[in-house]
Amino acid sequence: MKAAGRLKRAGLSNVYFLSLAAPSRPRLVSDKLEKYINENIDAFANDIVRLASQRSVSARKEGIEECAALVERMLREIGAETKVLRIDGAAPLVFGEVKSKKPGKTIMFYNHYDVQPEEPLELWKSPPFKPEIRDGAIYGRGVSDDKGELVARLKVAQSYMETQGGPPCSLKFFFEGEEETGSVHLAEYIEKYGDLFKADGVIWEYGTVDANGTPKVTLGVKGIIYVEFVIRSLSQDAHSSFAAALPSAPWRMVRLLNALKDANERILVPGWYDDVSTLSEDELRVLQEMPFDGDGLKKSYGASAFVGGMTDEQAKKALVQRPTGNIAGIWAGYTGPGSKTVLPKEIHAKMDFRLVPEQDPDDLFKKLRKHLDDSGFADVEIQLESMEPAARTSHRHPFAQAAVAAAEEVYGREPIVQLGSPGTGPLYLFTRRYGMPSVDIGVSAEDSGIHAPNENLRLENLRKGMLWISETIEKFSAS
Amino acid sequence: MKAAGRLKRAGLSNVYFLSLAAPSRPRLVSDKLEKYINENIDAFANDIVRLASQRSVSARKEGIEECAALVERMLREIGAETKVLRIDGAAPLVFGEVKSKKPGKTIMFYNHYDVQPEEPLELWKSPPFKPEIRDGAIYGRGVSDDKGELVARLKVAQSYMETQGGPPCSLKFFFEGEEETGSVHLAEYIEKYGDLFKADGVIWEYGTVDANGTPKVTLGVKGIIYVEFVIRSLSQDAHSSFAAALPSAPWRMVRLLNALKDANERILVPGWYDDVSTLSEDELRVLQEMPFDGDGLKKSYGASAFVGGMTDEQAKKALVQRPTGNIAGIWAGYTGPGSKTVLPKEIHAKMDFRLVPEQDPDDLFKKLRKHLDDSGFADVEIQLESMEPAARTSHRHPFAQAAVAAAEEVYGREPIVQLGSPGTGPLYLFTRRYGMPSVDIGVSAEDSGIHAPNENLRLENLRKGMLWISETIEKFSAS
Repeated sequence: MKAAGRLKRAGLSNVYFLSLAAPSRPRLVSDKLEKYINENIDAFANDIVRLASQRSVSARKEGIEECAALVERMLREIGAETKVLRIDGAAPLVFGEVKSKKPGKTIMFYNHYDVQPEEPLELWKSPPFKPEIRDGAIYGRGVSDDKGELVARLKVAQSYMETQGGPPCSLKFFFEGEEETGSVHLAEYIEKYGDLFKADGVIWEYGTVDANGTPKVTLGVKGIIYVEFVIRSLSQDAHSSFAAALPSAPWRMVRLLNALKDANERILVPGWYDDVSTLSEDELRVLQEMPFDGDGLKKSYGASAFVGGMTDEQAKKALVQRPTGNIAGIWAGYTGPGSKTVLPKEIHAKMDFRLVPEQDPDDLFKKLRKHLDDSGFADVEIQLESMEPAARTSHRHPFAQAAVAAAEEVYGREPIVQLGSPGTGPLYLFTRRYGMPSVDIGVSAEDSGIHAPNENLRLENLRKGMLWISETIEKFSAS
Repeated sequence: MKAAGRLKRAGLSNVYFLSLAAPSRPRLVSDKLEKYINENIDAFANDIVRLASQRSVSARKEGIEECAALVERMLREIGAETKVLRIDGAAPLVFGEVKSKKPGKTIMFYNHYDVQPEEPLELWKSPPFKPEIRDGAIYGRGVSDDKGELVARLKVAQSYMETQGGPPCSLKFFFEGEEETGSVHLAEYIEKYGDLFKADGVIWEYGTVDANGTPKVTLGVKGIIYVEFVIRSLSQDAHSSFAAALPSAPWRMVRLLNALKDANERILVPGWYDDVSTLSEDELRVLQEMPFDGDGLKKSYGASAFVGGMTDEQAKKALVQRPTGNIAGIWAGYTGPGSKTVLPKEIHAKMDFRLVPEQDPDDLFKKLRKHLDDSGFADVEIQLESMEPAARTSHRHPFAQAAVAAAEEVYGREPIVQLGSPGTGPLYLFTRRYGMPSVDIGVSAEDSGIHAPNENLRLENLRKGMLWISETIEKFSAS
């Protein structure tokens, strides 16, 4: 069935997953482990309820210490060695390790124990911090992002301990408490604790199945430069009648922004695209295989067309490989109802530039500064909010292939392979420093309502996702 | 002294105020009237305190009816016939009339009894609605703008009644309660009550002396078109990673605004400047006479230069005769601290275009719409907030000359003559409909702190301003 399915899709999968297509490749997860996971799924769900009952809203510094302590306790309960790492002013970073009896690879799990704020409260059907299991799913803040994923990984390790005396490779757990506020101390932690963070591959925080139950393997993220431009032309707002003589900060910002992108939304900073690599034919095939519901995306955001009239194929590619320059916020003057005649003293604009692999944020930030200088905006302040390079693991890497093959085993179908997420995360901290491959796989679903009211995790997705993680570990350990 | 002073200024005043320069022109205000004003100035001040003690914040519809009733009572107290005019949903308009025993001209006073909100409260040294007289000045909300001016006009009429049995010409009082919220029903009132509003000249709400005590005669206002542009590209905000594919409302607004003005801030709407007339040589001379502290203006607003590097002379002229296109407000997306990665679903921009005499707002609004249509923005919504043509009285008009000559008599120096204020007001409703001349003269000072905390009115300015108004009435009646 699977092979036939693949052949129907223009025979492409046998090119890029050639090795995995061999029928001889066995399932490596033992029946015993699978049975243990199946039989204990309700207990695992209760552990998710337990962890999600502990508030830990990093944006409000709410319950962070308590949650870190609980996470460490839960690590100890499965037999992990633990360390609570600390940096002044940062949420504690909980580290755990379960060593394999066999020498070999080490896989690291990156997750976070902090959650998004629960608002708007009135839209929750059950209290966000009193998680409830109903109709085969857990409901509560963080049950998917990321406490459900975190517990799933702990319980995979526990399942190995209980059924086989230990996992097929050593496992490291790396749980931070500031992911939802930008992982601002992560680099410092890695700097300070060095080799503790070394492994052969990292399973990133989160993975999903789509509406059809097809799992998705994501292999990277875009980078980002987030800046705020500030133009001040006056020391105080003036009555707008003075606009005949006094300079206008908003008009200057219009001209600045206009100098940054052309009518086709191409970034005009010289050299911006120099390091953008072209996708290989191999990668283009993976991209082509990736389902993409262009109409659905446009419909769900009420967009009449894609940027510059792109086709679905072009838009899909752009989401993976096109650098962006987005105006995330802009404000000046009077923003209330009706009219007020004011010449605003200043204007602010926030922009995020998404970067693709090989683009160097440091270099681009300098080019941005120079472009403004050269365009007559030398005096304009650029506040740098954050800067992260992209990270991407080749779909040809054995770790990626293990995750893909494991998905096929567990879900009985080819996974969606996403070369890179259009979003950003601090993945590069691991992948760049230690040359580690990474995969995003997990137990959630695209409709898990993360960051939203009634966030949820279906128990069947938890069960299958745990098997998927287990099989990935097995396959990578054996590779 | 005065004549010599004028000659020193390149002999220009004898060109444009030739008739007034004749030494034979007498003061017309009687000693009796002047004595009455001098002796009763404290009582007049108490009447200002009385009126300003009645809250009347139109933006919050606070005390409007009560204040209108008090204003009518005060009109009756001086012996005026009164009518309280009403339109559904509008603040009442209080009308009063004091007829002269002599047939001849009628002068109308336009003032308003509503005031600006008093915030920020903490910056007031005494409570805004419990006005206090200290160090020769009244402090309180509205004591200058416009209750002090309003009471001054009432008391000028009272002074004539008490000393001469009546004023030298008939006087009409026309006090509205919505000036601070845009005079939105004024046109309707004038439409409804027609000829009641007819006169030979209107003394507009407000007049000042500058820091040197030199009075200023202002002869008009610019017009305005106030619009809000709204661009919606999505039905909901999207994560900014989607900016690679989904359209951006902010970028579209940048392009729209960029199509409205060039780098020199010239408005690009075809035909925008067609009806802008050139100042006559005569007017240019008046302009040249007008003092203008360019450095002071730049300094007080912290501006390093005027728009487009204009000289002081150019800036002074621009304030009178240059149409503007000002971005009064713009907002989209995330405007808080730090970074949020959002692709905003919409953006709003508020713009006010100031117009000079002869520019027709209706015609220009159509041209603006067409320019956007022709520039690819046919779908962009333009919300029209308000529209008023400019109004200007020739400095050659006998009414203007009367105000100027009266200022010379009372202040012992030539007044500043401002051909037109850079600001806007509903003056055209009178000047256009009835072909009435108007002058802005009064009792306030440039540092009266209108719209600000510790608004004030100096008693000496009240006294001199009342004499100025009286002398203007006398001179115009005799002309």
